[in-house]
Amino acid sequence: MDISVVNALTYDDFVKIFGNVVEKCPLISAAIWSHRPFKDLADIETHITEFIDSLPDSGKEGILRCHPDLAGRDLQSGTLTHESQEEQSQAGLTTLDSAEILRMYRLNSQYKERFGFPFVICARMNKKADILRQLSDRLQNERALEREQAIEEVKKICSLRLHNIVLSDIQTKL
Amino acid sequence: MDISVVNALTYDDFVKIFGNVVEKCPLISAAIWSHRPFKDLADIETHITEFIDSLPDSGKEGILRCHPDLAGRDLQSGTLTHESQEEQSQAGLTTLDSAEILRMYRLNSQYKERFGFPFVICARMNKKADILRQLSDRLQNERALEREQAIEEVKKICSLRLHNIVLSDIQTKL
Repeated sequence: MDISVVNALTYDDFVKIFGNVVEKCPLISAAIWSHRPFKDLADIETHITEFIDSLPDSGKEGILRCHPDLAGRDLQSGTLTHESQEEQSQAGLTTLDSAEILRMYRLNSQYKERFGFPFVICARMNKKADILRQLSDRLQNERALEREQAIEEVKKICSLRLHNIVLSDIQTKL
Repeated sequence: MDISVVNALTYDDFVKIFGNVVEKCPLISAAIWSHRPFKDLADIETHITEFIDSLPDSGKEGILRCHPDLAGRDLQSGTLTHESQEEQSQAGLTTLDSAEILRMYRLNSQYKERFGFPFVICARMNKKADILRQLSDRLQNERALEREQAIEEVKKICSLRLHNIVLSDIQTKL
């Protein structure tokens, strides 16, 4: 896809297409539309990264709090966003046995109790065993370090979603 | 309602209840949860205002771009958020005649073409004739002034939504 197609989008269509590259934060893609014309996809990604980095710590935590629990209530009840559903499914989180679901639930609860935001990891880059291990490991982090680590995962998720849109979705979402 | 009830909410429930006080920007209420305990409702409002003011111009424009057109496609197709639907309805925008709809559509289009974000006004504080007049007037503004004026309207909308939640909705949304 040619970047000129992206640069020709109205903000309405841009937000419709790119609005969920950061989970439930259309504000971010709506903001970076101000910086068009974009040189290429990497340029869009850079603007998003810079916008996220410019937020105060509360804003970064706000982004994290817009994310669903992994293998949590939204997955069980079918209320995940389309993108999250695909990612959690690819990581094998839709086929956990009951012991694994219970373990995930307990670790997620401890994590949220400790940090005040949910555990975020790029599910498309990890399988369920790695996710459980990292969840358990990252529970030991200090709050500031963990916030930064989680935000780095948000950026990885965003990058994959951006590439996915440009490769496949731009025609169908309009 | 006692502010202690709000302060006892998990971030999940807080975002569920307060997530749309700024239209389609749950990031903002999710962010200011970091500042609890809140002294009172005014304290919540102050944190939201400060968060909005701290954003770069692109971020403020991003907030505006998350708003629907007044008397626009979302109103016609029934896809407005619950809050917007009520507000546009109270302002009389659901009972425009075809000439008024056409006038609104033309002015909205000119406005979006000129500024790159939609016309935002606190509909609950204005009737349709005032809205049309102000839309026409504000079209003449300089961009930077108009962005600030529109953001002040976002804050008025937010204030009324906050008061509405605390008075009526907290029990029913949980």
